[in-house]
Amino acid sequence: MRIQGKHYHTIWLKEDDEQIVQVFDQRRLPHELIICDLKNYKDAAFAISDMVVRGAPLIGVTAAYGLYLACLEDSGDVFLKKAAKELRATRPTAVNLMWAIDAMMEKLLDLDESDRVHAAKEKAGELKHEDIEICRNIGLNGLSVIRALYEKHQRPINILTHCNAGWLATTDWGTATSPIYHAVKEGIPVHVWVDETRPRNQGAHLTAYELLQEEVPHTLIVDNTGGHLMQHGMVDLVIVGTDRTTAHGDVANKIGTYLKALAAKDNQVPFYVALPSSTIDWEIKDGLKEIPIEQRSQEEVTSIMGWTGEKVQRVQISPIGTQAANYGFDVTPARLVTGLITERGICKATEEGLLSLFPERK
Amino acid sequence: MRIQGKHYHTIWLKEDDEQIVQVFDQRRLPHELIICDLKNYKDAAFAISDMVVRGAPLIGVTAAYGLYLACLEDSGDVFLKKAAKELRATRPTAVNLMWAIDAMMEKLLDLDESDRVHAAKEKAGELKHEDIEICRNIGLNGLSVIRALYEKHQRPINILTHCNAGWLATTDWGTATSPIYHAVKEGIPVHVWVDETRPRNQGAHLTAYELLQEEVPHTLIVDNTGGHLMQHGMVDLVIVGTDRTTAHGDVANKIGTYLKALAAKDNQVPFYVALPSSTIDWEIKDGLKEIPIEQRSQEEVTSIMGWTGEKVQRVQISPIGTQAANYGFDVTPARLVTGLITERGICKATEEGLLSLFPERK
Repeated sequence: MRIQGKHYHTIWLKEDDEQIVQVFDQRRLPHELIICDLKNYKDAAFAISDMVVRGAPLIGVTAAYGLYLACLEDSGDVFLKKAAKELRATRPTAVNLMWAIDAMMEKLLDLDESDRVHAAKEKAGELKHEDIEICRNIGLNGLSVIRALYEKHQRPINILTHCNAGWLATTDWGTATSPIYHAVKEGIPVHVWVDETRPRNQGAHLTAYELLQEEVPHTLIVDNTGGHLMQHGMVDLVIVGTDRTTAHGDVANKIGTYLKALAAKDNQVPFYVALPSSTIDWEIKDGLKEIPIEQRSQEEVTSIMGWTGEKVQRVQISPIGTQAANYGFDVTPARLVTGLITERGICKATEEGLLSLFPERK
Repeated sequence: MRIQGKHYHTIWLKEDDEQIVQVFDQRRLPHELIICDLKNYKDAAFAISDMVVRGAPLIGVTAAYGLYLACLEDSGDVFLKKAAKELRATRPTAVNLMWAIDAMMEKLLDLDESDRVHAAKEKAGELKHEDIEICRNIGLNGLSVIRALYEKHQRPINILTHCNAGWLATTDWGTATSPIYHAVKEGIPVHVWVDETRPRNQGAHLTAYELLQEEVPHTLIVDNTGGHLMQHGMVDLVIVGTDRTTAHGDVANKIGTYLKALAAKDNQVPFYVALPSSTIDWEIKDGLKEIPIEQRSQEEVTSIMGWTGEKVQRVQISPIGTQAANYGFDVTPARLVTGLITERGICKATEEGLLSLFPERK
């Protein structure tokens, strides 16, 4: 997708020096556009743990490139295993991270040391392009939902999204945003309601930034607003991403998603979840009982980051002495989900629905 | 209630000079505790329009004291009518404001000019003490709900509230907070989940501050969190305030209230609304169709105020160029409301319920 009119992926090899991996510093967006050089696997590990990069798919690809950087330094088994272990520890609950590291290590450890640099670069590139292909297919599948609404209403389609399941969370296209970008590409007029998504404000920081750069009409709202909009017919469709989907279609996503799903149900607004099938956890059924919810630091709630006009600064919102709780995710029960948009097609948020697209899991 | 251990009302005559009215500058809380002198009616008008004071009951009492200050300057009809007109224009949609000014003017214009200063001081004081009495009774009535939950569970009762319907919005006790303060007074252990309440953060700024000063156990959360807490049995009761209640029990309150009501319903958590009967609009029935929703400035969404460690500063959250929408209120349909807590008792959120407490409205 585009930033300042130029096409980018979220991770790439430096143009004149393929021994350096480059990413955007997403901690500084939207206020500053800074490209970071990752020169060794420790840089890649830091980029993941400090959230220079975030979003499950992008984390996975960054770890893969981290192992490529490790190979450049020392492609021996001992060093690579050490690097893999450190990379794994950066975000211990991220499923994609483990999966990408496993895929890389399986490939590399089978090869002669002298072949590993080349193979690591190839494999990381493969994982990256697989991610792009998956996101593109999610977009093409989700496009049908937007197209049907447009054919019915013959006016711009209002889509609400929560958090950033955008291209900045993946390599390109995004998950929840991919149907939107594909609709725009097809000439369907859309308007996106962007939940700011406290506490980390990924909506205000990243989704708004993406849509602005792609010139997609959008309006920022506080997380409290979606219900009111739906009551007044101002939302035609909700599309969100997910961090983990159960075999029965429950969806764990950024905190607050459940509230939007309730409002969608109460106002007969279709509520779709876009996901790469890698987020489906086939081992678990009941999301509310089985998905542990990460608690994060209080400071994300009691303070906020913004631009003073001169610099990015954190300011305290609440009185000193007030404690805060910070649950990162909530679970939206499958009964509130209209459909799951995957790279293989759209299905109902039920065991049968999922198995119809992924029969090999029966 | 207490601030730094000292008992205050939110508005009072200066101790050694009763020609000056004093209020807290609520724009600066919780970061700075500043007492403002209102020396003439224009100071009072500014205090209301610039939100030095806010909350429907406190706005009404401040306008009443504004007319007392006007009398001190010139108690002639022409001057008082001019002052009343300016005070009315400060927050044109505030019902209490109009009501308080009407009550004052009705009293004053009937009197000789020489009697007006004294009468204005008396009448403003009366309106203030009426507000305290109403809030106390709301508290005593709401206390029964908390007491019943405590008798059932025999552990601290977890209460979620949205925005600030606290004592800082009234003269004392508050509306939604009054049952909580009365429960604490009776020795019932409570814990309050405080929604930060974006965009203006009245929860983080004011409710947290009040509870901290009164030493009531509380935890600040982002507005996205309540649904998750209710899904996991961590909320026993929701109590919120209201700006306007219809004759059929629909409730217009701070944006986001409706989302909490949906989550309460979905998880069988009792959802109560505390209100002085002055907020009931007996002329309207369907809140969704008949209550106009104020739209406020974009800047409240795109930026936020906080404490840098040295000063209060506004910081930009979203990218420059992104537009925002800012709806101030939403309407919670009566079907989601367990009960209305008024100064006369608790009733169902129905026409019959309201008329059972206010039979004179039949």
